[in-house]
Amino acid sequence: MKAYFCLMQNIEAYQKSFISYLEDFTVDKEPKNLYEPINYILKLGGKRLRPVLTLMTTEVFGENSNVAMDAALSVEVFHNFSLVHDDIMDDAPLRRGKETVHEKWDLNTGILSGDAMLIMAYQLFENYEAEIFQALAKLFSKTALEVCEGQQYDVDFETRDDVTIPEYLKMIEYKTAVLVGAAMKMGAIVAKASNEDQNSIYDFGRYLGIAFQLQDDYLDAFGNPETFGKQVGGDILENKKTYLYLKTKELGSPTEQSSLLKTISDDVISDQDKVENIKELFHSSGASEATQEAVKDYTNKAFVVLETLNISNDKKELLRLFGEQLMNRRV
Amino acid sequence: MKAYFCLMQNIEAYQKSFISYLEDFTVDKEPKNLYEPINYILKLGGKRLRPVLTLMTTEVFGENSNVAMDAALSVEVFHNFSLVHDDIMDDAPLRRGKETVHEKWDLNTGILSGDAMLIMAYQLFENYEAEIFQALAKLFSKTALEVCEGQQYDVDFETRDDVTIPEYLKMIEYKTAVLVGAAMKMGAIVAKASNEDQNSIYDFGRYLGIAFQLQDDYLDAFGNPETFGKQVGGDILENKKTYLYLKTKELGSPTEQSSLLKTISDDVISDQDKVENIKELFHSSGASEATQEAVKDYTNKAFVVLETLNISNDKKELLRLFGEQLMNRRV
Repeated sequence: MKAYFCLMQNIEAYQKSFISYLEDFTVDKEPKNLYEPINYILKLGGKRLRPVLTLMTTEVFGENSNVAMDAALSVEVFHNFSLVHDDIMDDAPLRRGKETVHEKWDLNTGILSGDAMLIMAYQLFENYEAEIFQALAKLFSKTALEVCEGQQYDVDFETRDDVTIPEYLKMIEYKTAVLVGAAMKMGAIVAKASNEDQNSIYDFGRYLGIAFQLQDDYLDAFGNPETFGKQVGGDILENKKTYLYLKTKELGSPTEQSSLLKTISDDVISDQDKVENIKELFHSSGASEATQEAVKDYTNKAFVVLETLNISNDKKELLRLFGEQLMNRRV
Repeated sequence: MKAYFCLMQNIEAYQKSFISYLEDFTVDKEPKNLYEPINYILKLGGKRLRPVLTLMTTEVFGENSNVAMDAALSVEVFHNFSLVHDDIMDDAPLRRGKETVHEKWDLNTGILSGDAMLIMAYQLFENYEAEIFQALAKLFSKTALEVCEGQQYDVDFETRDDVTIPEYLKMIEYKTAVLVGAAMKMGAIVAKASNEDQNSIYDFGRYLGIAFQLQDDYLDAFGNPETFGKQVGGDILENKKTYLYLKTKELGSPTEQSSLLKTISDDVISDQDKVENIKELFHSSGASEATQEAVKDYTNKAFVVLETLNISNDKKELLRLFGEQLMNRRV
């Protein structure tokens, strides 16, 4: 309980100092039409989970988190770059309840402001010494390219009927999890942790990231509408090939499988019925249970890696608690 | 004559070795839908002017041009990234006579493949030692952001009637000239030239880049249709606010100025008449002469900077010849 209290205090402190750093980052430069959308999207809010992980990791490896502030900001700027361009590709009108950049301005502004953010993310490493700069920029480039690849797989999957579970796992690893791993590894790089520890904390974050996304798939269908940020059942209504869907195709009886395909291609069924029927199939086929198992599996993989880190048990305990909180989604 | 022959031999040799390096760069990775458009645009051809400048500069500063191959490729990959995203913004169907990426594939492919190319341009610096890597990446980020700013100014100017000559010069400096300067400075960085020489060669390239773009404005109206790559009169038909146009607004008599505005907003005039009438105004107002003066001025600024470089007179002569050829557009 004391450790939990301490963790929550830490997280709040990191969030607070990060947000204050972000506020000071406001880009007051010409041309306004390029930089205003950047300020807009960066100030839209959010949990700032990735930069908090960077700051926390730096402290876990014995360095003051202030040293990691620029690296943390880079991760957040990159994340927001990917949101701006993804929102164009998904034709999304809203982001965090506000207009998306390409809606509030236009397509060209969304493309160009996004491009500028990707470049600015690299610039945020410039205050680090050459060796650290190179390590951060290399990790960043590798990660950013994987995020692009993950987004491309996601786009490709929309028009494919033969997506496999391993392909799906690779997609969410690239699109979501590698950035969580990279956010933590950047904290370790800045703290000059050993290469071994850098790679282990990366894997810890990557496994947690996969678990987080699988949990997101689960909550999208079975979450509490009061507390889950998005519309419950959204993935079902968009016919998204989530882990729940793919597992139902794998585990369901022939009747359940044909019922799944029939319901998905049913044009006259009401939204509510569609969501209810498919949720029922997720349950009866064993897919929802399998999804929760997978969340646990990946969380456990993260905890196994955690044990190998050369840090005190107190710090391991903090990171473990963080992982558990993330899966329970109280943070 | 001997120097000219030597220059042309050099340029051809650089082009040849660069193109062979580029051929080997073919990205044979998954997902195909992300990387195929990148191979496509990189192999579309072009004069490869910027990478040739990088290679040439490295040799001018006494290092083997092979050392600069990755930096040269980075410049070319970045240039092609900007073409892919600009073509989306300009809604352009063709690039070098072939379909643009967003036409051949789609909007999302154009955005995402462009993003990946921007990241890959940074990755091409990774084989350089940490200090060189940092110098290259810093220069690259600064330049890339200025190119975005230049593109934004260009977009903004489309809907403004009060664009000034200094604003226009800043736009073409950012959109076109800084990348020419950076291409040369990268060659100097790789050759470990002094900071002074690095900055001078940057200015040399930047001034030549401005002269090059002003010459482009001039040739768009007055070039030989047989040898000029684009449709002569294209800028006029698009009502582009080029240097010729802005100078006519500045220098023209009241009659010429009102004739310019009338012709531009004339909806029934034939394309041929419009081009002819406006070209006549460019001449009579003195704008075409002023444009050629400006080309000479910026070329001379480049040559003044050239004199300050700590290199042999032979090498200065080569660079001067290169500048002259560029303005005569035989290269």
